Amino acid sequence: MDPNSLQARFHRLRSNKAFELFVVGIIVFSALVIGAKTYDIPPLLSQVIVVLDWMITLFFLFEVTIRFIGEPRKRDFFKSGWNIFDTLIVVISLVPIEDSDMALIGRLIRVFRVLRMVSIIPELRMLLSSLIKALPQLGYVALLMFIIFYIYGAVGSFFFADVNDVLWGDIAISMLTLFRIMTFEDWTDVMYETMAEYPFSWMFYVSFIFLTAIAFLNMIIGIVVNVIESENRARQIEEEGEQPARSELEAQLVQLQKSVDQLLAQQATQRPPDKND
Amino acid sequence: MDPNSLQARFHRLRSNKAFELFVVGIIVFSALVIGAKTYDIPPLLSQVIVVLDWMITLFFLFEVTIRFIGEPRKRDFFKSGWNIFDTLIVVISLVPIEDSDMALIGRLIRVFRVLRMVSIIPELRMLLSSLIKALPQLGYVALLMFIIFYIYGAVGSFFFADVNDVLWGDIAISMLTLFRIMTFEDWTDVMYETMAEYPFSWMFYVSFIFLTAIAFLNMIIGIVVNVIESENRARQIEEEGEQPARSELEAQLVQLQKSVDQLLAQQATQRPPDKND
Amino acid sequence: MDPNSLQARFHRLRSNKAFELFVVGIIVFSALVIGAKTYDIPPLLSQVIVVLDWMITLFFLFEVTIRFIGEPRKRDFFKSGWNIFDTLIVVISLVPIEDSDMALIGRLIRVFRVLRMVSIIPELRMLLSSLIKALPQLGYVALLMFIIFYIYGAVGSFFFADVNDVLWGDIAISMLTLFRIMTFEDWTDVMYETMAEYPFSWMFYVSFIFLTAIAFLNMIIGIVVNVIESENRARQIEEEGEQPARSELEAQLVQLQKSVDQLLAQQATQRPPDKND
Amino acid sequence: MDPNSLQARFHRLRSNKAFELFVVGIIVFSALVIGAKTYDIPPLLSQVIVVLDWMITLFFLFEVTIRFIGEPRKRDFFKSGWNIFDTLIVVISLVPIEDSDMALIGRLIRVFRVLRMVSIIPELRMLLSSLIKALPQLGYVALLMFIIFYIYGAVGSFFFADVNDVLWGDIAISMLTLFRIMTFEDWTDVMYETMAEYPFSWMFYVSFIFLTAIAFLNMIIGIVVNVIESENRARQIEEEGEQPARSELEAQLVQLQKSVDQLLAQQATQRPPDKND
Repeated sequence: MDPNSLQARFHRLRSNKAFELFVVGIIVFSALVIGAKTYDIPPLLSQVIVVLDWMITLFFLFEVTIRFIGEPRKRDFFKSGWNIFDTLIVVISLVPIEDSDMALIGRLIRVFRVLRMVSIIPELRMLLSSLIKALPQLGYVALLMFIIFYIYGAVGSFFFADVNDVLWGDIAISMLTLFRIMTFEDWTDVMYETMAEYPFSWMFYVSFIFLTAIAFLNMIIGIVVNVIESENRARQIEEEGEQPARSELEAQLVQLQKSVDQLLAQQATQRPPDKND
Repeated sequence: MDPNSLQARFHRLRSNKAFELFVVGIIVFSALVIGAKTYDIPPLLSQVIVVLDWMITLFFLFEVTIRFIGEPRKRDFFKSGWNIFDTLIVVISLVPIEDSDMALIGRLIRVFRVLRMVSIIPELRMLLSSLIKALPQLGYVALLMFIIFYIYGAVGSFFFADVNDVLWGDIAISMLTLFRIMTFEDWTDVMYETMAEYPFSWMFYVSFIFLTAIAFLNMIIGIVVNVIESENRARQIEEEGEQPARSELEAQLVQLQKSVDQLLAQQATQRPPDKND
Repeated sequence: MDPNSLQARFHRLRSNKAFELFVVGIIVFSALVIGAKTYDIPPLLSQVIVVLDWMITLFFLFEVTIRFIGEPRKRDFFKSGWNIFDTLIVVISLVPIEDSDMALIGRLIRVFRVLRMVSIIPELRMLLSSLIKALPQLGYVALLMFIIFYIYGAVGSFFFADVNDVLWGDIAISMLTLFRIMTFEDWTDVMYETMAEYPFSWMFYVSFIFLTAIAFLNMIIGIVVNVIESENRARQIEEEGEQPARSELEAQLVQLQKSVDQLLAQQATQRPPDKND
Repeated sequence: MDPNSLQARFHRLRSNKAFELFVVGIIVFSALVIGAKTYDIPPLLSQVIVVLDWMITLFFLFEVTIRFIGEPRKRDFFKSGWNIFDTLIVVISLVPIEDSDMALIGRLIRVFRVLRMVSIIPELRMLLSSLIKALPQLGYVALLMFIIFYIYGAVGSFFFADVNDVLWGDIAISMLTLFRIMTFEDWTDVMYETMAEYPFSWMFYVSFIFLTAIAFLNMIIGIVVNVIESENRARQIEEEGEQPARSELEAQLVQLQKSVDQLLAQQATQRPPDKND
């Protein structure tokens, strides 16, 4: 049948390295077009960009269609998060939007096209998935960090809200201020301001910096331990391949013992007549 | 007897996973209530919060009581630092305080309720105790760091107190300023000020930054070495399980040697008659 | 023939440790002369420096000539990037330039003479080449980082260009501003400015800081894993030298088995007559 | 003889743990006295401090004398750098100085007394010596870093001296400014200033930050590799203790082979007569 042949041909096309490179090229070109829009450009060029933008959108529509038709089992296509992401980006790009609020969303969607690079290049997809896999390990440290932030945020807004409402007005703003302090960003300006009223408030800041530094160090160590452990495990599995050598040695020894035992048994049966000799 | 049955029932309750999750939920809710208090809220909501606060306090009283009754040996209950912490938080929350100074303490106590999260979730408790265990290893580096701070603080306040009394007034303030310099926070502003009077004072700052950076690096290396060493030790103990394989090989060889020796001995006893043959 | 003898003599000279040290000395002296030029110096000293500069240039011309003549195969000389770099530096230094624009290039060329230190000292050359070898490993992380920068840069210039044209005017300037935010350099000043118009823009900054921090952490981990892996590989190769010991053991056991088999065979041929005995 | 007995008694005293602790106590007390001097103190207390200061000086004189007399071979005393340091600190403290310039030196000497803590506590001495031992390993990276600083410093002062003479006036000041940029301290303020005249000067700063970051990373990796290598070496030496086991196995096998060979030889001598039988 014809559609089956079409599916096979498209499957081959989308696995083609040259086609992949061409798609990456179009994505890079699309990124450049997005970048160009942020400059003040003459109206003529602006119109050229609108045309280019439509051409890119149509190409992406064409490319996602090829990938969809090329999929042997249509159901599997939407099992991959990246395929859904690609389709959404293309479909929303197709909606003609004039309204200023919606136009902004249209622009953002076009920016996120750059992320299609990740969905096309397998190495980037692997890198990202390994990043995401590493995150839950840090879950409890993140929770501890959040508890520290929450407590200091609450205490900070209780005491310092009267000193500077912009920095310590409520617990959310306080936590943002604490994040700023964690990055050492002009933290002394914040401190000197509160020290004018509470001379011992430096303890608040210094203890906070120490606690977050220790939690951060703990996170780094946790990651390093994980890396070393998984390295060791990988090496152990590798050495497992050499392990049989030892059991082979043992098997050979057992075999040898048997042979020698046989010898002894033969000697034993042989000797009595010798003795009777 | 009845009390024994109650203790057993409460022991089962406090080990119940669902109950633990419910307590965590109440702690999170209590944290949200604390957070809400930092916003400007209408009087009605404020009164609702007061009621909620009392309900949370009562629930915590109830929960700690369950944990206490559920304890098989009452003496052991106060051996755990976290149990004492929980009890203190609950008991102080119960004291009705109106005075503005005391009210502040009441508010702080309510903030520290968030820390009960650590006493309830075992993983956080383990994380914290492993953090605390790692601290003494860093003791001597911390002492060295303190000596560096003290010397630079004293020298700084001798020379620069006249330049800027706010930053270098006495040794305590000088050490705070040095802590700020260690975090690179606007340290050049401090430096340029003193360089106007002492043109070579940049050596004071640059050498201080180098010394603290080296001490800090040393700390990191110390931690990494500790991590690798403990990893290696763990692996060695693991390999100990495989070690017997070698001594087994040896035992087998020894056994084999014995058998062959026996053969030889038999041959020896057998041959003389052969020779006489 | 004479030129051959000259080549051999020059080859010996350029491999001479004392000559190498002397060249390093001249480079350091050349660096000092360059440094001196940045100070306000009296005209007399300025003229002395011009003379010294010419002497250094001539010495370098002489030295590169020696290295070229000393090269056994002239073609190989320009196969080394460092030799080309050295020759270029010397040749351009020789061009007499008076024009102010060109004079600047002449000065820069003289500054880059300090880099000749790397081409002379083998340890520095090794360090640099190992640095350059490590870079491509970080390629995909760098690409991911660039994508993050590009997306945030585009979004930033769409939204914030009206708030501050100097910081968010176009995508290139936005990316420079983002680089600044990544280094935590007064990033809150940038944030508070945009938060005045877009109250939720703190999410833009905090999420950007988190993403770059995670990508950076990933890079560090990648490097550490690489280091540990290459260490393990090096050790494995080292242990390979001990490996034969095992196969030797095996060979010995096989040999022993053969001997015992031979014994058994002899016994077998020997016993029937014994039985018939 | 009596002096010998005195030496032995003093040797025992200075090795006494309680005496060591007492000296550490006096050093801490001396540090507190130094700290107290940085505060505005009433004249009476000031006089008390002068007396205390003399008592501390006399105690240190007494302590160093004990250590000197306690030394079995007087010549070895001055072979230790720390002993020389201790003696110098004590001797200079004894010189009565009134002149304001000299008085400052007297005060500094008293500050450095805190460093005597390092000379007394063995763990700190070990920490410091291991720090100093690690430094030369970083020699070439430091040299590379210095070359980068020198080139950027020279280029910076050529181009930017006209823009801001305070920051880029000569090569020394330029290098201080670059050190500030490396710590990310208000580096954008420096950059925006030069970008007003040289719009592409951001490349100067960004490339400098990248180069120093890479060199710094390289340093960290070098340290980690060193740590792992020395760990591996330590473990290898440890395993060497188990290594003989293998060669023992081999020796046993060789012995066994000999026994079996002997058996074969016996059989061989035994069989001919059998055949002749």
